[in-house]
Amino acid sequence: MESKKEDLTLLGVKDAIAALEKGVCSSETFIESCLAKINSNDGKLNGFIHVEAEQAARDALQSDNRRKNGTLLSPLDGVPLAVKDNIDILGQPTTNGLGMHWIPSEDAAVVKLLRNKGMIFLGKTNMHEAALGATTDNPHHGKCFNPLLEGHTPGGSSGGSGAVVSGYLCPAALGTDTMGSVRVPAAYCGIVGFKPTKNFWSTEGVTPLSVTLDTIGPLARSVSDIALLSGLALKNVDVKNCNVASLENFDYADMEDEIKSGYEGTKRLLLDAGVSIGQVRLSDYDPSSARRAGLLVSEVEAGVLLEDFRLTSEEAFSPELQAMLDFGRRAPASRYFNAIQKVQALKRELCNIFQKQKFLITPTTPQTPFHFSQETPINQADFTALANFCGCPAISLPLKRSEEEKPVGLQIMTAPGFDIDLLSLALGIEKLIANN
Amino acid sequence: MESKKEDLTLLGVKDAIAALEKGVCSSETFIESCLAKINSNDGKLNGFIHVEAEQAARDALQSDNRRKNGTLLSPLDGVPLAVKDNIDILGQPTTNGLGMHWIPSEDAAVVKLLRNKGMIFLGKTNMHEAALGATTDNPHHGKCFNPLLEGHTPGGSSGGSGAVVSGYLCPAALGTDTMGSVRVPAAYCGIVGFKPTKNFWSTEGVTPLSVTLDTIGPLARSVSDIALLSGLALKNVDVKNCNVASLENFDYADMEDEIKSGYEGTKRLLLDAGVSIGQVRLSDYDPSSARRAGLLVSEVEAGVLLEDFRLTSEEAFSPELQAMLDFGRRAPASRYFNAIQKVQALKRELCNIFQKQKFLITPTTPQTPFHFSQETPINQADFTALANFCGCPAISLPLKRSEEEKPVGLQIMTAPGFDIDLLSLALGIEKLIANN
Repeated sequence: MESKKEDLTLLGVKDAIAALEKGVCSSETFIESCLAKINSNDGKLNGFIHVEAEQAARDALQSDNRRKNGTLLSPLDGVPLAVKDNIDILGQPTTNGLGMHWIPSEDAAVVKLLRNKGMIFLGKTNMHEAALGATTDNPHHGKCFNPLLEGHTPGGSSGGSGAVVSGYLCPAALGTDTMGSVRVPAAYCGIVGFKPTKNFWSTEGVTPLSVTLDTIGPLARSVSDIALLSGLALKNVDVKNCNVASLENFDYADMEDEIKSGYEGTKRLLLDAGVSIGQVRLSDYDPSSARRAGLLVSEVEAGVLLEDFRLTSEEAFSPELQAMLDFGRRAPASRYFNAIQKVQALKRELCNIFQKQKFLITPTTPQTPFHFSQETPINQADFTALANFCGCPAISLPLKRSEEEKPVGLQIMTAPGFDIDLLSLALGIEKLIANN
Repeated sequence: MESKKEDLTLLGVKDAIAALEKGVCSSETFIESCLAKINSNDGKLNGFIHVEAEQAARDALQSDNRRKNGTLLSPLDGVPLAVKDNIDILGQPTTNGLGMHWIPSEDAAVVKLLRNKGMIFLGKTNMHEAALGATTDNPHHGKCFNPLLEGHTPGGSSGGSGAVVSGYLCPAALGTDTMGSVRVPAAYCGIVGFKPTKNFWSTEGVTPLSVTLDTIGPLARSVSDIALLSGLALKNVDVKNCNVASLENFDYADMEDEIKSGYEGTKRLLLDAGVSIGQVRLSDYDPSSARRAGLLVSEVEAGVLLEDFRLTSEEAFSPELQAMLDFGRRAPASRYFNAIQKVQALKRELCNIFQKQKFLITPTTPQTPFHFSQETPINQADFTALANFCGCPAISLPLKRSEEEKPVGLQIMTAPGFDIDLLSLALGIEKLIANN
C-alpha cells in the first residue's frame, strides 16, 4: 500500500489540478491510482456498474501529451470523473440502473462539455433503479454501500456517485437530482452535493425520470471542487453580510436527534461568527404532502418516458419499479394536474421569499444513513424536494464529525440563477465548519 | 335616430379620448349613447348577459367631475368598456357562460387596473359556455349573433365581446383567449383582437379554463385602441424594415377560398409596399393534432378547476360541456403529460424560429363566420392555438372588405415579450390595408 503522502486518490479536483500543474504527477499516474483504488476497494462499495479502465488510461496519456505540448483544453484537463449510469457516455454501456443496457453513440451534452475540457471518464456509477428511490439497493447491480458506515446505504438515487467520491475512488462524480438524488447521497456520504438551477446543464443524453424536476449536479469533497466542475468563478463573500434564514416549516418535521443537534450546532456556529439568522415560513407547505406530489409527478412522467423500454424489456424492471410506473400510468390526469399545480404554487411562494431573504438553510435530510437491514424511511427527500419544485440551486455541505458520529448535511438554497452566490456563501460556511 | 355625425357610439377609444378632451361630449353623454345603443340593438345581437346601466351612469358622472377638477386618472378616464363574463367585476354577476351566477366581492386584477385608470364598465358579455368552444351558441344565455352577417356566429369563446364592439355598442371589450378565443371572434366580427404575451395581465379574478393556456386580451376597432387599452406606447416602424415570414405549415391546411384569397391578397399588398416576406416551417407540427393536444389540456384543467361548481350546480352545465369535462376528468395522466410535452416542444421550436424571424403572419382562422344552421367546423382554432402554446403575443387584424365579402382576419405573431413591436407593426399593416 502506498504511503498517505503518495496516495494521489486523496486529492480533490483543485488539488489534482495543482499536482498536475506542478508535475507532482501525470494524468496517467493519477488515473492509474484511481483505477488501482477502484480495483482494490470497489468490490466492497459496489459504487461502479462499469469501469472503462483502458480508454481512461489512453485518454490520460493524451492529456499528458497536451500538457507537454502546451495545448491543454482547460485546468480540468486530465482530471478523472465518475458519471451516474443514467448519463450517456459514448461507447460505455448505460443501464439507468435497470437490468438492461445500451451503448450510446453520443456523449450526453454535459459529458461532451466536460470532455471538451479534457476530463477523463472512469466509468458509470451505481444508482437506484431508474433513479426512482433513494437507497441504491439496486436489484440488478447489487447494493451500493456507504464508505463511512458498514452495511449502510449511501443514499440515492446517485448513491454510487456519492460512494466513489466519499470512498476516494474518484475525486468527483456527476449525479442527477429529481427530488434530492444528488444531495441525499452527499449528506449520507459526508461530501458536497450541488443541484444547480434547473437547466444549468442540458439534460440531453440523460435518461429522464421527470422532465419537470430532473437536474444534473456534481458531487465532490469540497465547495471549490464543485465550483471548478461547474465552471463557476466564486466571489469573496463575508458570511456575516449574507442574508440567511432558517426555513421554519421543517422545525416540526420528524427528524433524528443527531440531525437536530447537528443543525442547531451549525446555526450556533454561524451566529457565533456574526451571521444573523432569520426565520421564514412557507405559508401553505406540508413537506410530506409536497413530497407525495413530487413523487406522483415522477411516477407519471417516468411511466410515460420509460414505457418504450418496458415494452421491449419488461424483465429489466423490478416488480417494485413496475408497480410505481403502473401507478403513474394509471393515475388520472386530474391528480397529475393537481400535483403540478402544487409544485408551481410552491415555486411561486419560494421565489417570493427569495426576493426578501436571499439564502435559506435547512438540514439536508431528516435522518442519517440507515442500515440496509432497517426499513427505508419514506421522508428522505422531504427537505430536498423543495429546491426541485422551485428549480432553484441548492447545496449540501457535510458537517464536521468525529469517527463515532454519523454524517449530517447542511442544505443551503437560493433563488434560481444565483448559483455563484450560493457556492460563494457555501465556501464561507465550509471554512467556518472546518475552523470550528 | 341621431345623425351619423352625432352618433358617439361610432367613436373608438382614441376618438373617445379626443372627444372627451375637446369637450365634444361628456363621459355621461357618451355612456348614455352606448346604453341607448345597447337598449335598441342588443336584443338582436345578444352580446350582453348583464348591463350595469345605473352604476355606469354614476361612474361617468364621477369621471366628468374629475375632468372638471383636473384630477383625471388617465387618458382612458370616462371611456366605457365591456367585459367577458368570466372576468369578475365587483358587484356585477359572473356566469362564466354557465347557467348559474355569483356576485364577486372584488374586481379581477385587470378590471381593478383599468378601473384605476377611470374606465367605466358597461356590463358583462355573452360567451361560449365556460369558454370551452368557439360559437357562442350559449345554452343558458342564448345565441350571440354576428353584427356583420345575420344568423351567423360571432365566433368565440369571447363572442359577445366581439359582437358588441363590432356592433358599435361599446368601443372596446375584454375577452380571454385559451386557443384563439379573442382572435377568432375578432376575425369573424371584422375587428381587432389581441392576445398579449402570457401573463401580460394577471388572470386573478378570471374563472380559469386552462391555467396553462389562458390569456386575457382586448378587442377593439383599431390597433391604436388596442394599444391604449394595453397601456403600450407604440414605436414608429417602417413595415419595409420588418422581418416578416409566412408560416408555411398552414399552406396545406383545409381553408376556405375566401380565406386563401384574402391572405394571398394581403401578402401581395405587403410585397407591393416593399415588405419582403420569408417562409418558415415548424418541423414537427400538425395543426390538427396540436389543436387536439390543446383541447385535451383545456378539458383536463377545466375538469379539475370547474369541479367544485359542477358538484354544487350540476344543472348549470349543459350535457355537452359535462361530457367534455368528464372526458378531461377520465383522461389518464399519461395523455395529459404527452399533450403538455407537445405544447412545450412547439413553444421551444417557435421561440427558436423567432430568434431568426421576428414576425410570422398567417390567416387568423381557416374559415369565415358560418351560419348557426351549419355544422360547427372542428378546426376553428387551428391557426390561433399555436400562440397560446408558445405564450407569445398575437393579433388579428380585419382585412378590407366590401359589403358582400365575408370578414377575414390576418394574424401576426412575435416572440414572447415583444408586444410593443407586434402592435407597432400591426399599426403599419393596418394603415397599408386602409390605404389600399
